[in-house]
Amino acid sequence: MARQTRERILDTSLAMFNAAGEPNVTTNHIADELGISPGNLYYHFRNKDDIVEQLFSRYEARIDDALLIPEDRLPDLEDIWLQLHLVFECMWAYRFLYRDLVDILARNRKLKLRFSRIMTRASGSAAELMRGLVRAGVMRANEAEIRGLAENVLLVATFWQSFSAVRGGKAEPEQIELGRGIHQVMVLIAPFLRDAERAHLATLADAYAQ
Amino acid sequence: MARQTRERILDTSLAMFNAAGEPNVTTNHIADELGISPGNLYYHFRNKDDIVEQLFSRYEARIDDALLIPEDRLPDLEDIWLQLHLVFECMWAYRFLYRDLVDILARNRKLKLRFSRIMTRASGSAAELMRGLVRAGVMRANEAEIRGLAENVLLVATFWQSFSAVRGGKAEPEQIELGRGIHQVMVLIAPFLRDAERAHLATLADAYAQ
Repeated sequence: MARQTRERILDTSLAMFNAAGEPNVTTNHIADELGISPGNLYYHFRNKDDIVEQLFSRYEARIDDALLIPEDRLPDLEDIWLQLHLVFECMWAYRFLYRDLVDILARNRKLKLRFSRIMTRASGSAAELMRGLVRAGVMRANEAEIRGLAENVLLVATFWQSFSAVRGGKAEPEQIELGRGIHQVMVLIAPFLRDAERAHLATLADAYAQ
Repeated sequence: MARQTRERILDTSLAMFNAAGEPNVTTNHIADELGISPGNLYYHFRNKDDIVEQLFSRYEARIDDALLIPEDRLPDLEDIWLQLHLVFECMWAYRFLYRDLVDILARNRKLKLRFSRIMTRASGSAAELMRGLVRAGVMRANEAEIRGLAENVLLVATFWQSFSAVRGGKAEPEQIELGRGIHQVMVLIAPFLRDAERAHLATLADAYAQ
């Protein structure tokens, strides 16, 4: 039962952070929403930072799964699509983190270090995937190009939701925008692809340009 | 004298916002720092939002200047470097805006619309510059590629400082990182350049990779 309350607090916090922005939600708001006393909430979590850290652990486990690359065979373009979808869905599920990323990490040194390590793993995973595509003959790029490209893939993916929010003048990001984000990452990779794959991508791109 | 006080308030606010983050600075802090009474500050500005809007107007005028492209001749690669330097220096001068961009714009509908219009002008300017490079024979890209590229140039430039802050785990962004940001934008454009320009860029890139 205690375990169930703990999970309910985490689920409700995540939903409220995502809806209103983490800085605008207090532990009192969360207790109110759940219909429990603030004392009951503090029995499970020391403070709001504690809740944010537990949600961050969930996020971290999910993003690590999404970053796994096939080890028993050479990758193909489908692997990139799949990885991007898993990563963008995870970023959407924990979008409160990305909305106020700089601010949240500036306030919590531990999370800043953990996020920095996730970025390093993600950059390594992207570079490894691209090296595999080069070996498979699908892509042509030298090591310096792959490193520069991996950083831009990381940057565009990490800040796509923020960009989408400030670019269009819309009040809230929409999940439908994720497809456009994935497309913008593929735009980065496209110039290094073999002609056949590049043409295939251009066809798919038309769908997003509507 | 009143005019002078007004300018001093703006200059001091900008320095304090940049140093501590705009959400962490109040009008009382600003009055304290200037050694004036809060009443004197309110004689010049209605509230903190009013100060932020005036600083935004300064920023807007400077970024518009930076986005001008040569009209009497075809552009070359040097024009892109120059424009990127001017834009990145402007973004650095008003870095408080970029540090809490989503949050600041979510709180102020007018600024959100104005920023959205700046993004549209910047994207148009980048695309126009690239079309000029294609006409000059320096670059090879079709219209769909130019549009996709212009959006990524915008995204990488806008969120470079945030990326730099969360990527490295450092406490504060450093001006020295701007060179690396400009380089990451050039990495986007490189694959579309003629061989000679691409080789030249690769040489310059080595300097940043150190």
